Amino acid sequence: MDVNLGLYFLSEMVGTGLLVLLGCGVVANVALAKTKGNAGGFLMVNWGWGLAVFAGVLASAYSGAILNPAVGIGLLIAGTIDAPMFFVAFAAEMVGAIIGAILCWAAYKQHFDDEPEAANKLGVFSTGPAIRSYGANFVTEVIATFVLVFIILAFADYGDVNVGVPGGLGPLTALPVALLVVGIGASLGGPTGYAINPARDLGPRIAHAILPIKGKGSSDWGYAWVPVAGPLVGGAIAAFAAPALLSL
Amino acid sequence: MDVNLGLYFLSEMVGTGLLVLLGCGVVANVALAKTKGNAGGFLMVNWGWGLAVFAGVLASAYSGAILNPAVGIGLLIAGTIDAPMFFVAFAAEMVGAIIGAILCWAAYKQHFDDEPEAANKLGVFSTGPAIRSYGANFVTEVIATFVLVFIILAFADYGDVNVGVPGGLGPLTALPVALLVVGIGASLGGPTGYAINPARDLGPRIAHAILPIKGKGSSDWGYAWVPVAGPLVGGAIAAFAAPALLSL
Amino acid sequence: MDVNLGLYFLSEMVGTGLLVLLGCGVVANVALAKTKGNAGGFLMVNWGWGLAVFAGVLASAYSGAILNPAVGIGLLIAGTIDAPMFFVAFAAEMVGAIIGAILCWAAYKQHFDDEPEAANKLGVFSTGPAIRSYGANFVTEVIATFVLVFIILAFADYGDVNVGVPGGLGPLTALPVALLVVGIGASLGGPTGYAINPARDLGPRIAHAILPIKGKGSSDWGYAWVPVAGPLVGGAIAAFAAPALLSL
Amino acid sequence: MDVNLGLYFLSEMVGTGLLVLLGCGVVANVALAKTKGNAGGFLMVNWGWGLAVFAGVLASAYSGAILNPAVGIGLLIAGTIDAPMFFVAFAAEMVGAIIGAILCWAAYKQHFDDEPEAANKLGVFSTGPAIRSYGANFVTEVIATFVLVFIILAFADYGDVNVGVPGGLGPLTALPVALLVVGIGASLGGPTGYAINPARDLGPRIAHAILPIKGKGSSDWGYAWVPVAGPLVGGAIAAFAAPALLSL
Repeated sequence: MDVNLGLYFLSEMVGTGLLVLLGCGVVANVALAKTKGNAGGFLMVNWGWGLAVFAGVLASAYSGAILNPAVGIGLLIAGTIDAPMFFVAFAAEMVGAIIGAILCWAAYKQHFDDEPEAANKLGVFSTGPAIRSYGANFVTEVIATFVLVFIILAFADYGDVNVGVPGGLGPLTALPVALLVVGIGASLGGPTGYAINPARDLGPRIAHAILPIKGKGSSDWGYAWVPVAGPLVGGAIAAFAAPALLSL
Repeated sequence: MDVNLGLYFLSEMVGTGLLVLLGCGVVANVALAKTKGNAGGFLMVNWGWGLAVFAGVLASAYSGAILNPAVGIGLLIAGTIDAPMFFVAFAAEMVGAIIGAILCWAAYKQHFDDEPEAANKLGVFSTGPAIRSYGANFVTEVIATFVLVFIILAFADYGDVNVGVPGGLGPLTALPVALLVVGIGASLGGPTGYAINPARDLGPRIAHAILPIKGKGSSDWGYAWVPVAGPLVGGAIAAFAAPALLSL
Repeated sequence: MDVNLGLYFLSEMVGTGLLVLLGCGVVANVALAKTKGNAGGFLMVNWGWGLAVFAGVLASAYSGAILNPAVGIGLLIAGTIDAPMFFVAFAAEMVGAIIGAILCWAAYKQHFDDEPEAANKLGVFSTGPAIRSYGANFVTEVIATFVLVFIILAFADYGDVNVGVPGGLGPLTALPVALLVVGIGASLGGPTGYAINPARDLGPRIAHAILPIKGKGSSDWGYAWVPVAGPLVGGAIAAFAAPALLSL
Repeated sequence: MDVNLGLYFLSEMVGTGLLVLLGCGVVANVALAKTKGNAGGFLMVNWGWGLAVFAGVLASAYSGAILNPAVGIGLLIAGTIDAPMFFVAFAAEMVGAIIGAILCWAAYKQHFDDEPEAANKLGVFSTGPAIRSYGANFVTEVIATFVLVFIILAFADYGDVNVGVPGGLGPLTALPVALLVVGIGASLGGPTGYAINPARDLGPRIAHAILPIKGKGSSDWGYAWVPVAGPLVGGAIAAFAAPALLSL
């Protein structure tokens, strides 16, 4: 079919922007000083991120709501999208993620100002490991993202579930994908905080670096490659494994 | 089509009444003395409000379950409803919200009486900021309501999801809207308690002012404009942005 | 249509049995000594009861899953079922509720034995008020059950949601009803623990009275009329109000 | 129909592998030292296991997502699958469960190493009773699994819900089954931690025995028969009871 890459970019940017605004938002609510959701628990974070994906998918119909370069690389290998679509989506997701992170900072401005711990501020934007060990952290991100992309590719088995918009998830799959992200977060988010999406982690990290956040500390660039490379590798493995393991 | 504005009023009043009864109810359960849900956590509040919207939408089929003047202004700008429908709905939502708040007070009467803190009593009815700063609080309400109305307008892309009742959301969208409200609450409710609906905040504030609540304090009228103006502005921005950003 | 009242009884008994087994079970898990879910919070209780309804509805297709005399009286007044169906369902729901409560006791036998507080044991079976005041407790049960039955009657507006089995809820409405019960519990369950169903409360109370529970105390018969009369009155009001308020 | 038993094995292995990876993962997140979800509560465990089933079902379309020998024995007795399918599925579920448990250990490697309590490590893999009493624990597993299999068999009443893939659950039933598992966990998981699936318990127990887990203790083989025999008996009872109780 004939894809308008400009609208494709717009759709991915908008969807990822909403995803990151809401996703980083729930971390801000749980982690920053004086919020009403302070110390609301990890399950609240899981629901917040899952429903952030839900919102992003619903607002990204034109492009099929990829919203995640790890999903994109899976769809590219699977042949669902082509290279121009992958790269346009990747760029759009990065721009959207930066914008979403800036909006999250705007929404929680007073609480960023009042929060004494610099690490909590960075934690709103980007993931960090509970126990720092780049190799192990990488493995965790690979496994968690493999699960995400593998099951998204499994949706392709079901014509009545997949609406068939170009390149991925349609609105009727918004709920399954959201629940999947709630589950992956609860189950595999313990060691690294589940980036499982390079744009979701790198975009907000860039926003953290450039925004004039009061009392901010390091953007932890030493760790930044893990939540980019891990998800891309996990998504690629899922795409190579899916035809054999899913009887597609 | 031919809308009966009397039934339209009734439908909006009933739906918003249930929305506010259940929404204020979950705050009463978490905040007031001696309840069984006392200190149940912010995620419980988020589910309570989300499912309050779910209930309200299911009981408001005739009018399409607007239930929120910020959604109404979005639908008005989008051309889905006309000015008489908007104003009738606005009035009905205010009346319904006042009735719902009174019923919530009736259901929790003993706990209002036993609660020592006047601020907790007002908190059941209306939102208040975690850190008072009218400008910042306004921005937070604008952003959160933008997300709500923008994604509701995105539903219009999907004929098979939207049932097509006049003016908004049909029963099959009750679940998506409910989940969206759970997510917005968890993610963007930290600074202001997410009014994201002028009627939901102003109606119960009026009820708080007029009801003979034992030991009640101020109705905090100084803040009252924020959860009215913020959502209306956010809804309007969403309606102007949606055609460009959603490829509608 | 031609209803086999024997199968009708069986269907209501099985569905209500599962409802009460799972519903009382979640309270046992949260309240009794040494369980894995001990002190799991009110939101866990709300989800447990909501999903108990979900399970009960799925297993009660023949009779349309009334499972609740307050819903039954609403359907009777609305003309959806006739008097023999109402009374057969009521009896079956009572029998099912007693069986479900006995199975719950069997599943948690060791924890009943180890629990020191008699009040916690009764609390697994039947509801009790947070602040005892029969009039106020009655009002709370009326309001909460009104919401339940009113919205169930609103489903009748949507032919594509209601499957049309005789007498009430079909399998496609299992999820909406379950979510509704989660929401009513979170929002209106604070004062009385939301019986909102005479069979759910009276059946287990009878089971509590007759079972040889180690260290059990009073079955609190003084309160027993509230969670029976309140829901029946609330369901009846909903049925009388629905045609006027729902534009049915 | 003509089933390819090789693909059938593969489908059950993949689905159960994902089920156990995510299911054991949420316990690791809640129980092991220094994770981000540490002490996240029993409701988080319930959602994690329920959504683990959701993921497993979505990735196991070819075989109809049995994923559980207790479900398999129910389908065998009900005549939905034949003996070769049952035994192939059982074997595949065991292999998948072992692989899933190994992947969970890989994802949480640092946290297993840092966890001081050997019992917490075993608890990630296999269930154990809150109060050890083999007879009572067996009864609890029988009851909980009866509920699971009985309601899955009830789905067969609804042609529009069941997609009709060979042998069990199709993708449209992924959500109901997931919610059912959330509910059973919350309601009946208190005494034994709800194995309700022999493969889910025995497979990871074998993995625990053979993996070089730092500081691990006993694999508690004395209890191992309970979460195997209990679910098989519960599933069989459900299959014998279903035709009579469900008016199938």
